[in-house]
Amino acid sequence: MSERAADVDVAAAPFGDRLADAVDARRSQLVVGLDPQLELLPVELRGDAHLGRDAAAEACARFCCGLIDAVAHYVVGVKTQIAFFEALGGAGLSAFEEVCDYARAAGLLVIADAKRGDIGSTARAYASAYLEPRNTAGPVADAVTVNSYLGRDSLEPFVSACRRTGGGIFCLVKTSNPGGSDVQDLVLSDQRPVWHHVAMMVAELGRDVVGERGLSSVGAVVGATFPRAVGEARRLLPQAVLLLPGVGAQGATPADVARAFTSGPASALVTVSRSVIYAFRIEGADWRTAAAAEAARLRDEVWAASGW
Amino acid sequence: MSERAADVDVAAAPFGDRLADAVDARRSQLVVGLDPQLELLPVELRGDAHLGRDAAAEACARFCCGLIDAVAHYVVGVKTQIAFFEALGGAGLSAFEEVCDYARAAGLLVIADAKRGDIGSTARAYASAYLEPRNTAGPVADAVTVNSYLGRDSLEPFVSACRRTGGGIFCLVKTSNPGGSDVQDLVLSDQRPVWHHVAMMVAELGRDVVGERGLSSVGAVVGATFPRAVGEARRLLPQAVLLLPGVGAQGATPADVARAFTSGPASALVTVSRSVIYAFRIEGADWRTAAAAEAARLRDEVWAASGW
Repeated sequence: MSERAADVDVAAAPFGDRLADAVDARRSQLVVGLDPQLELLPVELRGDAHLGRDAAAEACARFCCGLIDAVAHYVVGVKTQIAFFEALGGAGLSAFEEVCDYARAAGLLVIADAKRGDIGSTARAYASAYLEPRNTAGPVADAVTVNSYLGRDSLEPFVSACRRTGGGIFCLVKTSNPGGSDVQDLVLSDQRPVWHHVAMMVAELGRDVVGERGLSSVGAVVGATFPRAVGEARRLLPQAVLLLPGVGAQGATPADVARAFTSGPASALVTVSRSVIYAFRIEGADWRTAAAAEAARLRDEVWAASGW
Repeated sequence: MSERAADVDVAAAPFGDRLADAVDARRSQLVVGLDPQLELLPVELRGDAHLGRDAAAEACARFCCGLIDAVAHYVVGVKTQIAFFEALGGAGLSAFEEVCDYARAAGLLVIADAKRGDIGSTARAYASAYLEPRNTAGPVADAVTVNSYLGRDSLEPFVSACRRTGGGIFCLVKTSNPGGSDVQDLVLSDQRPVWHHVAMMVAELGRDVVGERGLSSVGAVVGATFPRAVGEARRLLPQAVLLLPGVGAQGATPADVARAFTSGPASALVTVSRSVIYAFRIEGADWRTAAAAEAARLRDEVWAASGW
């Protein structure tokens, strides 16, 4: 078979394998969250952002691309928060794609934090929006966050897309906010909280898309703010990659999530947003320098805590 | 006080009041769902859509605006499904806004079906994206659908936006798909399903934003495919507007949702998508004519079933 034919035949490797390789190569389980809030941007970037959504979208893209340059050496990927771009309309969504493309070109994995969830053809459209190749380019992201409340048939179109494209999903299981308990911690007649059942559903859903490295393309979001839940989630989801928000501004520490890594060095990712990207507001340094320093520190702390 | 000063002082009326007035004026509780799936569009519109996302976005906008013209006389509003636009990138999101603006200009209420849900500043960004005025125009939509899994503190930023803007939200409570039962029908130790607790949380959340007509700005999505659940939801959410998908392609009938209307003629909205907008594929008529005929028929059936 010629090399050319081989290229055409080879589908992207499963997300779990791509992630495991990336964690090995970069020795990092840190994901920096890109949440560009206009009013918090460095003054030099805010510039004309008050003039309209196009200028604001451009400022957000410049901020995020600058951060990618600054932290690329210390992270395995970025988590791009679409809400801040979506609020800027079409120009915002174009800027979002630009940032995702920039991060992928820098060799980083991109997790689109969209928390989408819908049924039937609508779920397929969302899966396509993030995981399928675009007309003239690859997919927007390597993985996307999804909301589990609509049940298994709402998640299956995303899993099919993962199988086709080598993409991944992270299903909301136990979120990091205090109010998450309103629904997720309701106790069922079997004495388990709702989120345990969601975790079991997600584990089942991911069983058929496990890569050679033992990790599924179907991961789970579990708040680092609840260390005990992190351990329980690890037991309920032995093959899932756990995406752990809540370290930094929300109060958790790398030590709080150590037990998430017992399924392997790439079996959990710590995602930190504000305390890295807005470090300059506290440190007073250049925004890129401050972000890089904070990312470097967290990368080392997380790696040490993971025990690998 | 001069008229000018009065204009400046007057905020938009609460969503519940605006809806009640619109239902009275139009004698319709029908909302047509605009779900533009490229492969289902009339051939005359598909045109160059295969050439790229910009052309596809334009085709979707033309289809939706044509449908708005066709059904405007029979509906109180439209439900615009953002997923199909989002899959087309920045041009798609611009087309989405164009369609929403077109519907509002035609005097219709616009419900953005986005099913968003996140925490803190991210939830505020989503609320702003749909409910706050844009730089040069009003808000994208009159109301937006939201996902309740992240709990009360994830919904509160939306409720604040409703209070400021006269917008509304519809919280997912009991969805129309079979798989919705995976999470929503789990039975708690008090013998109630999860969705009852979500309904009670939503009722509580909406208590402070009830308009003069007795309807809250915080509504609930309840699948018409579960008629018994519709009745239970009505009792648990006496002041909420129930948004009822599932009539038509998903198999429910207007008679299935009659009991949703016991809190008033505007206390429920029946949303129908595929069986109206793709009626031409079965009827063989012009797509606008077929959609108008089906909307007219459903408007009358729903109004009769509502008993008002």
